[in-house]
Amino acid sequence: MRNDAFVAALTAELGAEVVLTDPDRLVSYQTDRAMFCDAGMPCAVVLARSTADVATAVRLASEHAVPIVAQGARSGLSGAANAIDGCLVVALERMDQVLEVDVDERLVVTQPGVMNADLSRVVAEHGLFYPPDPSSWEFCTIGGNLATNSGGLCCVKYGVTTDYVLALEVVLADGEVLRTGRRTVKGVAGYDLARLFVGSEGTLGIITEATLRLRPAAQRPRTLAATFGTIHEAAAGIAAITRSAVIPNLLELMDRTSLRAVNDAYRLGFEDSVGALVLAQSDAPGLAGEAEIDAIAAHLRAAGAYDVVLAADDAEAALLLTARREVLTAFEAMGTTMVDDVCVPRTRIADLVDGVAAIAEKRGVVIGVVGHAGDGNFHPCVIFDATDPDEADRAHMAFDDVMVLGLELGGTITGEHGVGVLKRELLSRELGPVGMRVQRAVKDALDPRGLLNPGKVI
Amino acid sequence: MRNDAFVAALTAELGAEVVLTDPDRLVSYQTDRAMFCDAGMPCAVVLARSTADVATAVRLASEHAVPIVAQGARSGLSGAANAIDGCLVVALERMDQVLEVDVDERLVVTQPGVMNADLSRVVAEHGLFYPPDPSSWEFCTIGGNLATNSGGLCCVKYGVTTDYVLALEVVLADGEVLRTGRRTVKGVAGYDLARLFVGSEGTLGIITEATLRLRPAAQRPRTLAATFGTIHEAAAGIAAITRSAVIPNLLELMDRTSLRAVNDAYRLGFEDSVGALVLAQSDAPGLAGEAEIDAIAAHLRAAGAYDVVLAADDAEAALLLTARREVLTAFEAMGTTMVDDVCVPRTRIADLVDGVAAIAEKRGVVIGVVGHAGDGNFHPCVIFDATDPDEADRAHMAFDDVMVLGLELGGTITGEHGVGVLKRELLSRELGPVGMRVQRAVKDALDPRGLLNPGKVI
Repeated sequence: MRNDAFVAALTAELGAEVVLTDPDRLVSYQTDRAMFCDAGMPCAVVLARSTADVATAVRLASEHAVPIVAQGARSGLSGAANAIDGCLVVALERMDQVLEVDVDERLVVTQPGVMNADLSRVVAEHGLFYPPDPSSWEFCTIGGNLATNSGGLCCVKYGVTTDYVLALEVVLADGEVLRTGRRTVKGVAGYDLARLFVGSEGTLGIITEATLRLRPAAQRPRTLAATFGTIHEAAAGIAAITRSAVIPNLLELMDRTSLRAVNDAYRLGFEDSVGALVLAQSDAPGLAGEAEIDAIAAHLRAAGAYDVVLAADDAEAALLLTARREVLTAFEAMGTTMVDDVCVPRTRIADLVDGVAAIAEKRGVVIGVVGHAGDGNFHPCVIFDATDPDEADRAHMAFDDVMVLGLELGGTITGEHGVGVLKRELLSRELGPVGMRVQRAVKDALDPRGLLNPGKVI
Repeated sequence: MRNDAFVAALTAELGAEVVLTDPDRLVSYQTDRAMFCDAGMPCAVVLARSTADVATAVRLASEHAVPIVAQGARSGLSGAANAIDGCLVVALERMDQVLEVDVDERLVVTQPGVMNADLSRVVAEHGLFYPPDPSSWEFCTIGGNLATNSGGLCCVKYGVTTDYVLALEVVLADGEVLRTGRRTVKGVAGYDLARLFVGSEGTLGIITEATLRLRPAAQRPRTLAATFGTIHEAAAGIAAITRSAVIPNLLELMDRTSLRAVNDAYRLGFEDSVGALVLAQSDAPGLAGEAEIDAIAAHLRAAGAYDVVLAADDAEAALLLTARREVLTAFEAMGTTMVDDVCVPRTRIADLVDGVAAIAEKRGVVIGVVGHAGDGNFHPCVIFDATDPDEADRAHMAFDDVMVLGLELGGTITGEHGVGVLKRELLSRELGPVGMRVQRAVKDALDPRGLLNPGKVI
């Protein structure tokens, strides 16, 4: 599909500086970080500089019936940002300005192309804190976070992206611009459209501006690392913490495979006998924080921890967290990877771990388990040799098995990565026929011609 | 409109014990607590015992093209639950069971007819805490709270109803039953339908079950009362607190009129010179709580408080809070009341207070100002003599003026009470034409025949 007339109209309206059509450059806008998802070749990429550029591009695409795919940093893990043959890609990377930090109202207004970590740094300069912190925070955009309702490491205490959304500006399927939500902390005038767009993966509209609430800067956290002989003991410790009155601001679990993947690279010095690592933090202030980290340590010791060690200083704490954040990259050095993203009730963590081990054995592949244990949100990562077609097939089956396991345990096929292309087939199994019908009705209401990211999610 | 065939079919399927048709009894299902909103006479009331009853009633109403109005405790303040001539009222008061408290997962599954305060008491027995606490908590239902996305006094720290919704069961416009959301704390599989139904005031579906997240029991709060000569000084103190790193779990403001309304009834003993009262709480644990309440006190003193007093004991704190919660009832003793519900940016509180005073003077009515100052959410209450037609007209105009003022200050016409019938005319002014079009598209997608609470919200 060439869509020549559309590309000509687009270039005439926006200029050649904004519209990429060189095939060599288009190639780099084909995929996000998900493996094994279909991706096509766009007919053009618009490097939008403004909401007006996005609106113009969408209006023209709508007039020419060209499918539209929005992209942030293409760091997603579900193929939601993958191009479709002949589509228009609306790239938001140039819309990278933090527009306003309002200290008095404790909010930030931002364009979608700002990196999560950059936003965090800008607001931190004002003594403020934007909590959602996906592991990819240095290379994922706020727009992408909004599109997938990203979580992260501190969600266990502070919630996910949608919990911080006050207002959005959205370019709709026909190119009209909607402003929805408000700058006030409360408001119930009309349906909550802002939260409908959050997590919709570019299928209902393109978010061009967001007003996000902030928190006061958190206290410097105390960080604890606990080692266990088995991941079962670690899971029991996590369940005990969840059941208690303590809410850590971070509660992560790494299994033996994960730990080995990062142990050498980050010189963590854990011995081979360590079967699981729990990382926990408390950022409660003063003595309360001390009491909280002591309570967490006591729960982990009671569950059978070998050793519970407080990070000696910020550098040691940062090293542990960096190792945790980089584990997916470390897995990639071990082979081809497919990162899953199930979330289960927090009482079922041990069952998930057992189930994943059984799947790995049955399918004859390695699966590393790492995740946001305090939320029950795990990223079992299938690691395999993609040059071996049989092993690749088994890896795919293992990946699907993990999602089915998540559902069987009362959980979801995706806690924070989204559905995209990767998990589309299993969505109806989670949502059921009535759920799918209502999802479809909402999609049709907002995108009646089906031009926004078709073939993704539903 | 009699709808005889419909009522006959309804009674045949559900039985006379469930279907009320006696006009003497129907009368009491006509209105909620909002004044001056149109209300009609239902053709029948279904006292639903189960989701199946609701589904049957809605299916039959749909088949007979009878409008459907859901009701909880009819404690709403916007007319959203008012009956329409010839409609079916689906009353949820019999569905009043807390179905499950899961301590390990920290969640509760409840029917919609449970009173907010009853739910709070049930979960408190398990050491857990359901934060949203509208002033009407003793006589409003969770279903009504969900329908209007209720706030309350502790929202300033803990958020509003939607922040606690994990999953919903909803009877759709055609009588089908949708289960949406999940029991896990995270999940992004498909659009966030649960939060679309929250705050939709019975216009998209009828919520028949909710799975709500809980928090660990909060610490017993420290309570502080600060008196000011003028409400301006109080507003400045509140702005200073909002700007600081402190997040109180309660931050309320009462003006002179409000204070006088409750002072005698509750023997609060405030002198006539007091022009405004700020109530604040900190439930941070231990020394952190002490530091927090000290910081709040310091901000209020710096803003010019006469007197800042810590409640001596729980009884004194409870008395102050009860007085605050009962102020609307106290206003009702002074005349006919119309309670407004604007929410403004927290830096505009002083402007709101000035603007309301100007409106009261211009329209020649009394307006008491009370509200959740920490959220910028105020309930200016117009108090007037309804037997004087001219004064009643001026009261109505004052009520609308307050909403317009809220919008002019960058706020919303409703922070937590909802749109209902009362604020329908001004909704489009807040949302604009594109916003209204998208709201309407969502409504049409879920209720294509317009039978769910027609004439409310949009």
